[in-house]
Amino acid sequence: MTEALKVFDDRDVAQSLAERARQGDIRAVARLLTIAEQDPASLEGVAGLREIPSDAQVIGITGPPGAGKSTLIGALVTELRTHDHRIGVLAVDPSSPLTAGALLGDRIRMQSHAHDDGVFIRSLASRGQLGGVSAVTPLAIRILLATGHHRVVVETVGVGQSEVEIAQLADTTVVVMAPGLGDGVQAGKAGLMEVADIYVVNKADRDGATEVRRQLQSMISWGRARGPGDWRRPIVMTTSTTGDGVEALADEARRHHVWLRASGSTERRTARAMAELEAAMLQPVSARLATARADGTYDALITEIVAGQLDGWTAAKALRDDASMH
Amino acid sequence: MTEALKVFDDRDVAQSLAERARQGDIRAVARLLTIAEQDPASLEGVAGLREIPSDAQVIGITGPPGAGKSTLIGALVTELRTHDHRIGVLAVDPSSPLTAGALLGDRIRMQSHAHDDGVFIRSLASRGQLGGVSAVTPLAIRILLATGHHRVVVETVGVGQSEVEIAQLADTTVVVMAPGLGDGVQAGKAGLMEVADIYVVNKADRDGATEVRRQLQSMISWGRARGPGDWRRPIVMTTSTTGDGVEALADEARRHHVWLRASGSTERRTARAMAELEAAMLQPVSARLATARADGTYDALITEIVAGQLDGWTAAKALRDDASMH
Repeated sequence: MTEALKVFDDRDVAQSLAERARQGDIRAVARLLTIAEQDPASLEGVAGLREIPSDAQVIGITGPPGAGKSTLIGALVTELRTHDHRIGVLAVDPSSPLTAGALLGDRIRMQSHAHDDGVFIRSLASRGQLGGVSAVTPLAIRILLATGHHRVVVETVGVGQSEVEIAQLADTTVVVMAPGLGDGVQAGKAGLMEVADIYVVNKADRDGATEVRRQLQSMISWGRARGPGDWRRPIVMTTSTTGDGVEALADEARRHHVWLRASGSTERRTARAMAELEAAMLQPVSARLATARADGTYDALITEIVAGQLDGWTAAKALRDDASMH
Repeated sequence: MTEALKVFDDRDVAQSLAERARQGDIRAVARLLTIAEQDPASLEGVAGLREIPSDAQVIGITGPPGAGKSTLIGALVTELRTHDHRIGVLAVDPSSPLTAGALLGDRIRMQSHAHDDGVFIRSLASRGQLGGVSAVTPLAIRILLATGHHRVVVETVGVGQSEVEIAQLADTTVVVMAPGLGDGVQAGKAGLMEVADIYVVNKADRDGATEVRRQLQSMISWGRARGPGDWRRPIVMTTSTTGDGVEALADEARRHHVWLRASGSTERRTARAMAELEAAMLQPVSARLATARADGTYDALITEIVAGQLDGWTAAKALRDDASMH
């Protein structure tokens, strides 16, 4: 009885948080994201998170470290805000544990938007997560979309597989390059290049920016990086520190969104739905393992397995049974 | 009552299969692996899978496509069998779906050992699995070790992250190179090179084999690919089609095993235990998603999410509730 009551209470709380989040309460949004990370079962059946506005757009921004993505996103958010959209920003940081770098990054990025209730910014740690970049990312996107953030910007460092995963979640994927990052383009980070709907050459005021643009143009012209359908991938030159070119980037993102909606394709929303369902299936497991790591249960079980006193299935059952008793 | 009875029955069956598998019944081993893939909950609390012989060894064999790994493993198994070990072989194939390439590969590889009850061979598909190369691999290794296979050989194609994951599961990791595979060594597949405990240059009778060996030696000498502790990584030249060098490889694998046990380090067994627990937590989710994909439930849920009638958490709850009713 007690347990059933608790579950009901949690869901009630989540429902009311969703309501407040939709009305623009930033703390309610933050609380929902924390619940998604730590206690996802509370969000099952919460009606207020079901619908996503049909004009919403998820913009993925990726590129190699040092391309200036965070500053660019700061400038882009300012630009998008002039159209009075509520904006959500998620920074998926593959190197930071849940508590350290992520929060610091938030504080730095938050500065220019700290007093703007129309902008919600959150970092999601990904190290140690099951199932890729950050298992919670598709669910965090869902929360932001369902609570009235018409534009959600997801930043990820373009290394390994993360850029491909982000492209599966985004309506519009922006790949940011910059001069002086070594032979990033030529070295054939093909995966990174091919997911782009829009290319940005950031730090356009620096030596070598024109050369990076030239390389991109040549890639596009020999067909290696063509877009789907009849979308011609534009190259936008930006200097995010001065804001030059950021309006053009916002325009291209809008143009791509209009093109995508006109095409009638549900391909990207379907990919996002699949990632979301998988994440929702995985997240309770991930959360359970995180709790067990924190309270020492995990280490104790591993020691028993190593000692030949326990197998993985029985240890997993112990973790699940233990969780359901709380 | 019916459900509880069914669970009890399943566990009883698994217990009896484990008993028969330990006595050398190859079909019982096969059945256990299938249960691990499809109905992992039945293995929770099965006492017969708890203990692993302390002298068991997991040998990971990885390398680029075309290096001749499968033929080499066939010859190595023949060699290991002369010491009267029961041998398990797992081929993790990242490109094959569960039903197609895997089974074909089994049949080809089985030929020379088809009538030897001391050798168990199985392919594990990995595409579409949650959580990396093949979520079931650590559990399949556990089953083989616990049922008396003193040597378990795990083959994987060394592309992407799979070689690193296999190195986490193996006591001894063998990286197989061969001449004529392009500039495989120099191109700095550093991840692949650094996980090795033993290097093999296969196809040693071909032009260029000495050059591949020279490159490996130079890498080792400038320290890029040193082993842990005082283990000097050997380079073994093999021609697996004739069997030349295979005995030397088996000797080096034994020598590494002796060294590892003498070192008293539990690092590798701990890494394997962690992978096993994670796999056991993930596997029911993976199996549930596979069933839902097969029976159409998955597509129906995705369609509802795309249409804005459902969110990921509620869809996940529906999948879990539905599963517990069967």
